[in-house]
Amino acid sequence: MVFTEILGYSAGAVTTLTFLPQVIKTWKERSAKDVSLWMFIIAATNEVMWIGYGMLKNDWVIILTNAVVLAMSLTMIYLKLRYK
Amino acid sequence: MVFTEILGYSAGAVTTLTFLPQVIKTWKERSAKDVSLWMFIIAATNEVMWIGYGMLKNDWVIILTNAVVLAMSLTMIYLKLRYK
Repeated sequence: MVFTEILGYSAGAVTTLTFLPQVIKTWKERSAKDVSLWMFIIAATNEVMWIGYGMLKNDWVIILTNAVVLAMSLTMIYLKLRYK
Repeated sequence: MVFTEILGYSAGAVTTLTFLPQVIKTWKERSAKDVSLWMFIIAATNEVMWIGYGMLKNDWVIILTNAVVLAMSLTMIYLKLRYK
C-alpha cells in the first residue's frame, strides 16, 4: 500500500509537469499556430470532471494533480488565444 | 457509488479524447513547429506510471484511459519528429 501511494503521488507529480514544456515554449516563442485550442478546452473541462471524481472517491492524488493541470490548461487557452 | 463510477468512466472517456484534436490538426497541417516534444515525452512516461498505479489499485478507469492516452502520446511523438 505504501508503494502504491508513492507511485500514485509520483505519477501525480509528473502529471502536473505535462503541460509545462508547452506553456514555456509558447510563452518564449510567442507562437501557437500549430497548437490545438480544442486539446486544452477538452483538457480543462476534463480536469473539472476528474476533480469531481477525486472528491467523490476521496482520492487526493486525483484532486490535487488535476487542479494543477486545470491551471496549466487555462494558461494554455489564454496563450493560444493571445498568440494564435 | 454508481454515480461516482459513471462520472469516473465519463471523465475517462473525455481523457482519451484530449490529445485527439492535436493529432488531427498536426496530421492535416503537417506542421508541428509550435508543439512541444517534451510535453508528449513526459505524457507518455507518465501514462506508464498511471497504468502501474491503476493496476496496483485495481482501478480499470485509470488503467484503460491511460492506455489510450499513451497510444495518442506516442502518435504525437512520431508526428512531431516527422513534421518538426
